[in-house]
Amino acid sequence: MAREWILTDTTKGIWQDSFEVTGRDLGLSGPAEKIAVRKRTLQGGVQQGVDLIEVDNGALKLLIVPTRGMGLWRGEYKGIRLGWDSPVRGPVHPSFVNLPERGGLGWLYGFDEWMCRCGLDSNGAPGTDVVLDNNGNPTEVQVTLHGRIANIPAHYVAVSIQTEPPYAIEVEGHVDETMMFGPHLELRSRIRTAPGANYVDIEDRITNCRAVEGELELLYHCNFGTPLLEAGAHLVAPIKEMAPRDARATEGVDHFNTYLAPTPGYIEQVYWYELLADPKTHLTVAMLRNAAGDLGCAIRWDIRRLPYFTQWKNTAGQEDGYVTGLEPGTNLPNTRKFERERGRVIKLSPGQTYTAAIRMEVLDSTQAVRSVETEIERLQSQQAPVLHRAPVAKYSPV
Amino acid sequence: MAREWILTDTTKGIWQDSFEVTGRDLGLSGPAEKIAVRKRTLQGGVQQGVDLIEVDNGALKLLIVPTRGMGLWRGEYKGIRLGWDSPVRGPVHPSFVNLPERGGLGWLYGFDEWMCRCGLDSNGAPGTDVVLDNNGNPTEVQVTLHGRIANIPAHYVAVSIQTEPPYAIEVEGHVDETMMFGPHLELRSRIRTAPGANYVDIEDRITNCRAVEGELELLYHCNFGTPLLEAGAHLVAPIKEMAPRDARATEGVDHFNTYLAPTPGYIEQVYWYELLADPKTHLTVAMLRNAAGDLGCAIRWDIRRLPYFTQWKNTAGQEDGYVTGLEPGTNLPNTRKFERERGRVIKLSPGQTYTAAIRMEVLDSTQAVRSVETEIERLQSQQAPVLHRAPVAKYSPV
Amino acid sequence: MAREWILTDTTKGIWQDSFEVTGRDLGLSGPAEKIAVRKRTLQGGVQQGVDLIEVDNGALKLLIVPTRGMGLWRGEYKGIRLGWDSPVRGPVHPSFVNLPERGGLGWLYGFDEWMCRCGLDSNGAPGTDVVLDNNGNPTEVQVTLHGRIANIPAHYVAVSIQTEPPYAIEVEGHVDETMMFGPHLELRSRIRTAPGANYVDIEDRITNCRAVEGELELLYHCNFGTPLLEAGAHLVAPIKEMAPRDARATEGVDHFNTYLAPTPGYIEQVYWYELLADPKTHLTVAMLRNAAGDLGCAIRWDIRRLPYFTQWKNTAGQEDGYVTGLEPGTNLPNTRKFERERGRVIKLSPGQTYTAAIRMEVLDSTQAVRSVETEIERLQSQQAPVLHRAPVAKYSPV
Repeated sequence: MAREWILTDTTKGIWQDSFEVTGRDLGLSGPAEKIAVRKRTLQGGVQQGVDLIEVDNGALKLLIVPTRGMGLWRGEYKGIRLGWDSPVRGPVHPSFVNLPERGGLGWLYGFDEWMCRCGLDSNGAPGTDVVLDNNGNPTEVQVTLHGRIANIPAHYVAVSIQTEPPYAIEVEGHVDETMMFGPHLELRSRIRTAPGANYVDIEDRITNCRAVEGELELLYHCNFGTPLLEAGAHLVAPIKEMAPRDARATEGVDHFNTYLAPTPGYIEQVYWYELLADPKTHLTVAMLRNAAGDLGCAIRWDIRRLPYFTQWKNTAGQEDGYVTGLEPGTNLPNTRKFERERGRVIKLSPGQTYTAAIRMEVLDSTQAVRSVETEIERLQSQQAPVLHRAPVAKYSPV
Repeated sequence: MAREWILTDTTKGIWQDSFEVTGRDLGLSGPAEKIAVRKRTLQGGVQQGVDLIEVDNGALKLLIVPTRGMGLWRGEYKGIRLGWDSPVRGPVHPSFVNLPERGGLGWLYGFDEWMCRCGLDSNGAPGTDVVLDNNGNPTEVQVTLHGRIANIPAHYVAVSIQTEPPYAIEVEGHVDETMMFGPHLELRSRIRTAPGANYVDIEDRITNCRAVEGELELLYHCNFGTPLLEAGAHLVAPIKEMAPRDARATEGVDHFNTYLAPTPGYIEQVYWYELLADPKTHLTVAMLRNAAGDLGCAIRWDIRRLPYFTQWKNTAGQEDGYVTGLEPGTNLPNTRKFERERGRVIKLSPGQTYTAAIRMEVLDSTQAVRSVETEIERLQSQQAPVLHRAPVAKYSPV
Repeated sequence: MAREWILTDTTKGIWQDSFEVTGRDLGLSGPAEKIAVRKRTLQGGVQQGVDLIEVDNGALKLLIVPTRGMGLWRGEYKGIRLGWDSPVRGPVHPSFVNLPERGGLGWLYGFDEWMCRCGLDSNGAPGTDVVLDNNGNPTEVQVTLHGRIANIPAHYVAVSIQTEPPYAIEVEGHVDETMMFGPHLELRSRIRTAPGANYVDIEDRITNCRAVEGELELLYHCNFGTPLLEAGAHLVAPIKEMAPRDARATEGVDHFNTYLAPTPGYIEQVYWYELLADPKTHLTVAMLRNAAGDLGCAIRWDIRRLPYFTQWKNTAGQEDGYVTGLEPGTNLPNTRKFERERGRVIKLSPGQTYTAAIRMEVLDSTQAVRSVETEIERLQSQQAPVLHRAPVAKYSPV
C-alpha cells in the first residue's frame, strides 16, 4: 500500500507549486512518523526557478533537483554534511548554463551537486565526434563536458510513500534528453529511502526512444568535501586494476588512495579503475572514509551495469572546491570518441532500456566503517590488485 | 465593431497571467456563441514559462505560442489532429534552446510545432556568412539553422473578437528580432479565424526597423504527421518547376509526391519547387491529402510574396518524427550565403515592410479534397510541370 | 541610523516578490518625504523575469537591474532622460542572451543600459585567450565581448535608507561571477543617492574569491542618447593623452570631442584616453554636455582605480542606437590578450579586493555645466594634452 502524489506531469498539465507531506499527516507512527517530503521553488540569483524536493527520512535528508535532471544537490545524515562547497552556489538553473562555452566546459558553470549524472548521450571530456546529420551524412560536432542530462528539467515528478513497512519513501522523475534528428534517451529515475535509513537508493532506467540504434554513456558523479574528505581520508575499494589518467596523476600514484588537506593550487589527479565484485551478486562497493575511520560513505553497485570507476581527486583550496568524486560509470570519462574506440560506449537498440543503480550509505561510527572495510578486504581477497604506475593505453589516450 | 484585450505589452507594463473570453461572455449567438480564447502559462520540464493561447472557433482549435515567435503549436479540426509527434515534447521555452549547439543545429532542440516561422534575418541550413561588424568590417559569423524568430517571445500580444459578422477572432503578436549592431526585424503577426471556419489565416508584416538596409528570409514550416500523413498520402500542387535537393532526394524522385508509412532509418528527402498561381490573384495552393483522399490540408498564398516552396519528406519511424513539411518561403532553405548568390534574399530599405500571408484550410471530406484537386488541376493547365530528375544549380549547391 | 530591507538572499532563502517603501512611510519630512524605493518583476517578451528596482530621490529616478549584474537600466532627473534608445528593448533577461553567438558578440543581444559593467574576468573585444584548464594545462578559449557580469543575476539584494541626514538611499547587490575551475570574482556594489540629489554614487568592491591568483578587467559603460547627445554636443575632459583606436577613428580625429546628429550608416569611432586628475585627491571628471551647454552629465572617479577612459562615438541613425559611451576602466576594451601584453590587466591575489567607484552627476543649467568646465580647465592647466592623430602601439593593436 502506498500513497502517491504527482507534482509535475507536463503531458497532463499537472503542476504543484509547493508540496508537503509528513508521516504524521499520513497517520504513521514510530520512525515513519518523522518522515517528510517537501517541494519548493528557489528564487533569486542563478537559482531562480529551480525546484527542490526535500526528502527527510528522520535521519537522512536529501535535496533532489528535478530541474537539474534529478540530481541530488546535498544530503545530511544526523548532522553530517553530504556534498561539498563548490565555488558555484547553486543549484543553478539550466538557463544560466551554456554548455558549449569555454571550449565545451560550460557545464562547470552549474556544477555543485553531491551527486549528478553525466550523460546520457555522452559524458566525459569535451571533444569533437562524428555523428550522422539529418541527411544521414557523417558530420563532426562538438561534444561538451559531461553531456546534457544534468541541465534538463524533469517533465514528470511524483512522490510516493508506502503506508506499511518498510514505508519506502520514493521520488520518481522522468527526464527527456532529446532533439529532432538526434539522440532521444529518456531517464526514469527512482530515488528511494526508508524511515531512519542511512542510505539512499538511486535506480535508473534509460530507454532509447528512437526507432534506430542509439548510444549511451552514464556516470554517477558522487562528490564529497568535508567532513568526509580531509587530510588523511582514504578511498577504500576492491581493486582489480587501477591506472593513473595522465602524467599529473602519475605524480601522485604512490598515494592514490589517500587525500591531502586543502592545497591551494593543487591540480586534479584522476585514477581509472575496474573493481572486483561479489561473484554471485556482482555487487561491488567503494568507500570514502575520514582519517580517523569513524565517518564514511559507501557506494554500492552492480559492476555488470557500471563496470568502470573513476576517482577524481581535487584537494584544491577550500575556496576552489575541495572535493573528491567517486564515479561509477558505464565508461571512463574520456572523450566519447576515445571510449567508443575502446568499446566502452553502450549501444541501445530501438526501444531498449538500460538499468543502473547505486546505493549511497552513510557510515557514522568506527564499527560501521570497519565493517565495510572488512567487506572490501573479502572482495579483494579474490586477487591482488593490478596497480599501474603510469597511464595505460586501454584507459587513457596516449 | 470588435472587442480587444491586450495580454502583453512590455512597453506599457501590461501582462495578463491568464485570460479567458467566450462567445457566450460576449453575448454572441449562433456559431459565435461557442467560440473561446484562453491563455495559460505552462509549467514543468522544458515547457516551464511558455505561454499558450488557445483559440477555439467552435470547429477548429489553434494553440498559439507567443513565447516561440507566434508559432502554432498544434491544431485540431473536428477531432482531426493538425501537427505531428516530434521526439521533442514542447512547446519548448527558448531558454532551453541553444541555437549554435551541435554545429548550428541547436534549433532542433525546440522543434515540434505544427507551423513555425524560419527566419527572419536568415533561415535554412547552418553555415558561415559574412556580415558587417560594429566597425563596418566584413566578418565571418556562424549562421544557425532556421534563424532566431521561433525562439523569441512576443513583446506584444492582443486578442480581438468582432461582435458582428463575420465575428473574426484574431490574435496579434509582435516579435522583435534585434540586437545592437545587427539585424532589427519586427514581425507583426495576425492569426485569424472565424466561428466554425475550417481555416486559419496568418498575416505577417515584417519591418526593417534599421536606418540602414536589411535582409530578410522568411519561410513557413508547416508540418503534418498522422492522420493526414500516412502511407499513400499525396502532395498535390500546381508545379511550374521541381527539382530534388540532393542525391538522397534524387533516389526518390519517381515518387516525390507520395509518402511512405513510418520507416525507421528513413533519411529525409527534400524537393524544391516553384509553383503556378492564378494569373490575376497570384494565389497558389498546395495540399497534403491522405491516401483515401477524404482528408487533407490546403495551404494558400500569394506567390509574389512567397515565390519558393519546399517539400520536406521525413517519413522516419513514428518515434523519430514521422512528418512532412510544406514550406512556402521567400527563398529555399539553403544557407543564406548560397541563397544570396542566387538572388533569393530579400533586401529591405530602412523602415520598409514586407508582407506575407498563408491560409491553412482543413478538408474533411472526399468532396472538399476533390474540389481543391480540381482547383490545382486548373492552375496546372497553364503549363506542363518541369520535373527535374536531379539537382539543378539554380536551386542547390552542386 | 538606517532602516534596511533584504529583498534577495539566496543563501538564506529570502526573496521579496515586490517591495515598496517611501519617505512618508518612514515618517521622514522635507525632501526625504518624497523618496521611494520600489521593486517589481517584469513580464513578457525578453524582459520576462527581470527584477527592476526603482529608486526615486525626489528629483532623480534610477532603475537598477539586479538580474543584469546590478546595472542601471535608465535614469531620469527632473524630466531629463538618462540613457539611450537601443534597438534592443530591454532590460533583457540573461536567459535570452547567448554570449558566444555571432563570433562572441552575443552580449549585444542584451545591451540597452544607461550604465552596465563590462568584466569582471575580462571585458573588451572578443578573441581567443589562453587560460589554464582543470588539468593545469594552457588551453585556448574564446573570450566573449565585454564578459559575463552584465548577464549574471544578483544573489543578494538589500535596500537601506538612513533615517537621519543625509538620508542616504542605497541599494546593495552581490553578484558572483564564478565557475568550477575558473575565475571566481564577487562584485559587491552599493548604488547610493540622497533626497533631491543630482547624482548617483556607484561603489564597487570586487573580490578574488579563489585560493589562487586571479585577473580582473572592469569598465563602466555609461551610455547617453538624446537629449544630452545631439549635434554639437561635446565631450569635455582633462586630457593627458588621447589616441584614436583605429583607422576609422583617425578619420574623425579633428572632431573627436564633438558629436554629429543621428547619421544613418555612421560607423562607430572610438578614442582612447588617459586623463589628468587632481594631484591630491586623484579624482578626475569627464562630462558630456549638449550643444547649448545647459545640460550635461559629469562622471567622476579616482584615476588610480580606473586609469583608462574610452569614448565610444556611435552617432548612427536614431533607430540603430544613437549613443555615446563614456567608459572609465581599469583597461582599454581591446582583447584581454592584448591588454595583458600591455600590462593593463589587474592581478588579484587570493582573497584580494579591488575597489572602484564612479559618480554620475546631472547638470541642468548653464551655470552647472560651466562650473564643471571650469573645473576641467583647472585640471587641464597641469599640462597640454597629448593628442595623437593616429593609433599608437601602446593603446591599439597595430
